[in-house]
Amino acid sequence: MKAEIINVGTELTSGDTLNINSQYLSRRLLELGIDVRVHVSVEDNRDLLKELIGQARNRADIIVFTGGLGPTDDDFTKEVVAEVAERELVYNQKTMDDIEAFFAKRGLAPTENNRKQAYEIAGGVTLRNELGTAPGYYLEDGATTYILLPGPPGEMNYMFEHKVAGRLKSDENIYVKMIRTVGIGESQLEESVKDMIREDNEVYVATYAKLGEVRVKLTSRDETRLSEVYEEIEKRLGDYIYAIGYDSLEMAIFKNLRANGLRVGFCESCTGGLVASSLAAIPGASDVLDRSVVTYSNSAKVEEVGVSRESLEKYGAVSEQVAKEMAEGLFKKADIDIAVSVTGVAGPEETEEKPVGLVYLGITTKEGTLVEKHLFPGRRKTVQERSAKEALNMMRKHMINRGIYRAEL
Amino acid sequence: MKAEIINVGTELTSGDTLNINSQYLSRRLLELGIDVRVHVSVEDNRDLLKELIGQARNRADIIVFTGGLGPTDDDFTKEVVAEVAERELVYNQKTMDDIEAFFAKRGLAPTENNRKQAYEIAGGVTLRNELGTAPGYYLEDGATTYILLPGPPGEMNYMFEHKVAGRLKSDENIYVKMIRTVGIGESQLEESVKDMIREDNEVYVATYAKLGEVRVKLTSRDETRLSEVYEEIEKRLGDYIYAIGYDSLEMAIFKNLRANGLRVGFCESCTGGLVASSLAAIPGASDVLDRSVVTYSNSAKVEEVGVSRESLEKYGAVSEQVAKEMAEGLFKKADIDIAVSVTGVAGPEETEEKPVGLVYLGITTKEGTLVEKHLFPGRRKTVQERSAKEALNMMRKHMINRGIYRAEL
Repeated sequence: MKAEIINVGTELTSGDTLNINSQYLSRRLLELGIDVRVHVSVEDNRDLLKELIGQARNRADIIVFTGGLGPTDDDFTKEVVAEVAERELVYNQKTMDDIEAFFAKRGLAPTENNRKQAYEIAGGVTLRNELGTAPGYYLEDGATTYILLPGPPGEMNYMFEHKVAGRLKSDENIYVKMIRTVGIGESQLEESVKDMIREDNEVYVATYAKLGEVRVKLTSRDETRLSEVYEEIEKRLGDYIYAIGYDSLEMAIFKNLRANGLRVGFCESCTGGLVASSLAAIPGASDVLDRSVVTYSNSAKVEEVGVSRESLEKYGAVSEQVAKEMAEGLFKKADIDIAVSVTGVAGPEETEEKPVGLVYLGITTKEGTLVEKHLFPGRRKTVQERSAKEALNMMRKHMINRGIYRAEL
Repeated sequence: MKAEIINVGTELTSGDTLNINSQYLSRRLLELGIDVRVHVSVEDNRDLLKELIGQARNRADIIVFTGGLGPTDDDFTKEVVAEVAERELVYNQKTMDDIEAFFAKRGLAPTENNRKQAYEIAGGVTLRNELGTAPGYYLEDGATTYILLPGPPGEMNYMFEHKVAGRLKSDENIYVKMIRTVGIGESQLEESVKDMIREDNEVYVATYAKLGEVRVKLTSRDETRLSEVYEEIEKRLGDYIYAIGYDSLEMAIFKNLRANGLRVGFCESCTGGLVASSLAAIPGASDVLDRSVVTYSNSAKVEEVGVSRESLEKYGAVSEQVAKEMAEGLFKKADIDIAVSVTGVAGPEETEEKPVGLVYLGITTKEGTLVEKHLFPGRRKTVQERSAKEALNMMRKHMINRGIYRAEL
């Protein structure tokens, strides 16, 4: 089964809105065994949309649309699909009742325009939208299945999961296994699994690198072969693997901290709160996160965690010694199991001795303090993001050393 | 002039990589007076790419490609474009020298595959890539202009700005003015400029809402009319406008804080460091940011900023009183002009009295303390992002009250 995605909306083609719907749909369709080969975004333009549907129909069994289902004159995805499939639009009072109920719940009344949304594609299924006013539609027309979903990502995801996924069943399942690693470069990783990338025709092995992480994705129609290849790769990559599946590094570490009952705190300088906020983004973060002290200025370093003025003068704020004092100072004042510190040069200002990307990471536990020195490539934002990741990774290494880290939780 | 963007790469159609190139290119092309009507992403598939180029050629004057210029067998954008345009590929030793120099600088030698990248489209212009090994290409072929750029966004942006933008000149300029507002809802804003959206055919007025912000975009071919409409809208929206142009709320506030010589600090609970890190992401942040104390646990609130245990017990951590004590406690201990506090329920846990989205924001200056109560819609991440934005906006309101905030800096 082959699918094509058509995202409708001038806000996409003008660059005012970033298209995140096609990524989500591609992933989910692939998991259902459906190949996505083409994404199309098109401005609000009837003739153009009609042309693109005609072309997509020749290439794909399934066309998934997002956007253009709203009440205004600019919304006509449903109308154009009905035209291409030669179907009537039929008014449905029940759908109108749903729309009225949605508005009433918010103390509002629908406008005349909203009536448009109560028209349905004859012979199709109308997919109720509990999160908004625009219903979705599902239509099988000869060899082509049309799926129309609203544009807002929250509504779209919800509709896909609850109203669409169950209807899409491919004859062939595609099995996917995602291995997530940190601390190993892409070329080094490729080197170590090169023979498997080349020799195996039944399992497709692909690597993707991003911000210090490398993901290895295994795709196969043969579940047994996939497991065999996976086990071999797992053996070779060992502790570089931080998770299997879709967990981010933050999530994987959070789960391990919680499973081990560890409470943590941070003392951040160049990351400015990024370490803590990436953990705080996870529901349940309060189970592990006690505090973060963002000591951006030198005086904050002295006042908040007792870094000595002498060390600041002698070694500078970006130094092994200050990273050590930051982690130890925080560990001393807070009732936590792990204290991690970050101090570095995010740029753009730099000196020859202390270039952009120079970052010291400290970790203090009851076993003592360790400091790592890094030189991250890239500019300010990249350096901050890499530093935040590595700060979290310090805790992972600590758990690995203690034998209490698990990549599958 | 009409353009179409074709992004090549299976990592896009599989959903492994989010496509951010098409948004960037759309914006930049529009600024150059070129309309983008269609975006296409296609998997690494020669026949499919050829078909899509044929279709795009019928719709667009300019086709911009990203991706598929690398050294591997999966990379063939150049080859397919040459085939469609019926051009030879010609080996160029100078390009090979550039590639060798790029590798040499990194202590590496090019592989045999890299030779592929030294072949150029006959009759076209090869665009040197100082940031990577894949050169770009520019080819005018009859009515169609083909522009081929590498896939990595950093290289692509650089190449577009330095090698492509200067070559693209439209006869008609399109003028764009972006007005960025915060604190006013989209429907309320639309109501207040409704007559202008409807009556004016020479200036296109569009609104976009996202996370508590509403942007108003004016587009016109007539610069004078654009200015007139802009001035009228500015008059009506007043202090809701936080910036003109592309500055984010964080950037606009940062510039104003710096221009006014104000130093700030935060005491964050539910945002977990997001307020500070959004400011720290800006180069030069150290000019205004002193520190942020992320008091996630109750004991951190007591120990770090002296919130009283009595208030925590009596009112709870999410309360007007605790927000007040957090801001005042921080203001007292740090040498800053403005202290802002955030405490709220990010979820998913909630109670009837304290639902997800309930957030208190405090601000203390030498003039005293103010606390605002908000109820933000959405789930955890949205609540955190809205809270962080409003925490920064507290400082904007403070500067507006003092008459020292400027939307254009």
